[in-house]
Amino acid sequence: MASIFTRIIKGEIPCYKIAENDKFFAFLDINPLQAGHTLVIPKAEIDVFFDLPEDILSEILVFSKPIANAIKDYTLCERVGVSVIGLEVPHAHVHLIPINGMNDMNFANEKKTLEKGDFENIAREIRERIKH
Amino acid sequence: MASIFTRIIKGEIPCYKIAENDKFFAFLDINPLQAGHTLVIPKAEIDVFFDLPEDILSEILVFSKPIANAIKDYTLCERVGVSVIGLEVPHAHVHLIPINGMNDMNFANEKKTLEKGDFENIAREIRERIKH
Repeated sequence: MASIFTRIIKGEIPCYKIAENDKFFAFLDINPLQAGHTLVIPKAEIDVFFDLPEDILSEILVFSKPIANAIKDYTLCERVGVSVIGLEVPHAHVHLIPINGMNDMNFANEKKTLEKGDFENIAREIRERIKH
Repeated sequence: MASIFTRIIKGEIPCYKIAENDKFFAFLDINPLQAGHTLVIPKAEIDVFFDLPEDILSEILVFSKPIANAIKDYTLCERVGVSVIGLEVPHAHVHLIPINGMNDMNFANEKKTLEKGDFENIAREIRERIKH
């Protein structure tokens, strides 16, 4: 069965989309640690991150860079942290998380509660700041 | 002044080395979240991860992949997590952390206390498992 992320890529499940190219798709995490928390996924449905073929591993951070810079530009965070854990959805994904302190990336923290309108605004604000 | 990581690369500060090529250097984190916790750094001393030039961003995960697989092979962990935070040492670095649960990557956890002999053993065991 297709992963939830493959269904998001196909448009079968709605998302707050940030960016897309032929190999990758980026959208807001709906259980964000911080406003602006974004997931970057390869379109290829591969579970384990380091099982990704070298062309995907080599392009995923390059695809992520303008998105991370747009998140930073919008949130005015100190850094955009990167995290790959991979214990939940079996489709490799990179978390991009705006942080101002070490604890902002702690996945044990309570997630932010945002409304649909908040997510829509955040996604638009980030999309508008992506420089290619 | 050179970062502590540049001084490690130059051999001015000792480390438990895992791997090296022309662009990257990998060594054990001496304040590990888990035994086998490894840092991968570009030799270029650049502070902010997403300021790394595209050639470095595109190669850092490809360089990390055989190391991550060797960490997994040695520790028998469920996944090797990836984390970039960047609030401490001003020299971009990727954490590779063997994990069996979400909380194993929590940087608020107490670090493992290991002796010099432990680090030497772990580094050798990981190095021996790297497949190129």
